[in-house]
Amino acid sequence: MIHKFKVKTSARSEMCDITREVQALVRENGAAEGVCHVFVPHTTCGLAVNENADPDVKRDIIAKLDDAVSEDFDYRHGEGNSPAHIKSVLVGPSLTVFIEDKTLQLGTWQGLYLCEYDGPRSREVWVKILKG
Amino acid sequence: MIHKFKVKTSARSEMCDITREVQALVRENGAAEGVCHVFVPHTTCGLAVNENADPDVKRDIIAKLDDAVSEDFDYRHGEGNSPAHIKSVLVGPSLTVFIEDKTLQLGTWQGLYLCEYDGPRSREVWVKILKG
Amino acid sequence: MIHKFKVKTSARSEMCDITREVQALVRENGAAEGVCHVFVPHTTCGLAVNENADPDVKRDIIAKLDDAVSEDFDYRHGEGNSPAHIKSVLVGPSLTVFIEDKTLQLGTWQGLYLCEYDGPRSREVWVKILKG
Repeated sequence: MIHKFKVKTSARSEMCDITREVQALVRENGAAEGVCHVFVPHTTCGLAVNENADPDVKRDIIAKLDDAVSEDFDYRHGEGNSPAHIKSVLVGPSLTVFIEDKTLQLGTWQGLYLCEYDGPRSREVWVKILKG
Repeated sequence: MIHKFKVKTSARSEMCDITREVQALVRENGAAEGVCHVFVPHTTCGLAVNENADPDVKRDIIAKLDDAVSEDFDYRHGEGNSPAHIKSVLVGPSLTVFIEDKTLQLGTWQGLYLCEYDGPRSREVWVKILKG
Repeated sequence: MIHKFKVKTSARSEMCDITREVQALVRENGAAEGVCHVFVPHTTCGLAVNENADPDVKRDIIAKLDDAVSEDFDYRHGEGNSPAHIKSVLVGPSLTVFIEDKTLQLGTWQGLYLCEYDGPRSREVWVKILKG
């Protein structure tokens, strides 16, 4: 079974914390031990694990990626969102996190983020839990 | 069991659509539900999920990565393919996609790509399917 | 069960080969076939697969990433390690490798690396093995 939930993003580029939503699905599922795979069915956003404390970290990640994958380049794709496709390839569409005691296992400072690069939009997140 | 198939790339940098090959292995395997892991046993190519519609997207991804990880840098590795190793690390060697109804579950615009950065070459793709 | 081991890094940026440690855990676990997931519970390091032969490849990957995600940028995060957070997002915190004959399956030139971007530090690596 694939669990699905929606995320409404509110800016062109944004990192939306989805830790609570994924953690809730893991608890609901009830697997004592296992693996939690997360996937986004989109080509202009990605999934990342990063710091959940200082919001300036998210701001810096977004700003430096905007700088490295700049808008002013000889892109050919007509929709004007080639930088979003490129960031999506670099950040990646999937994550794998472990489950123990029916709980997602993350480091102290880690949170799960949907990385929006072509928003604002309504996005879907897919979650699949394997026991073991 | 690990399923393996070959991909013949035809340019130095290229994104080769492998969605059909992976989808066929999933159907053959017959798992109704599960997870499909894909892996490339190479250090100068990678695996990505991205747009399967406008070919200009692939062109833009390749061109901007070539620009960001440029050839003109003080590299020391004697084989002259350091940019390919770097892109391989950034894009990554593995992908995890979900299976439902014996079918790979992808977003409307998503395809699976082997990203060649040091071709043309013959590459191998490894696929492992876990039921659950 | 999650297997855990420590890695002591010795430089600000470094690629530490962890192939032997992960291979040993796979042998100990004894699963004949399966999948080995590796995860780092940190936000300023990552996991990569890359060349295990010429050490200049590691040096070039580190040098070019340092160049692309430069220190001289208008970062706001007060700890001064924003480039490490950004590289961590780009390289990613997790890897999935296959197991056959109780052995990690890697390409001839592939090794597993913990990529340190904010060292020297003591890091943890988490490993989870699923049979199948």
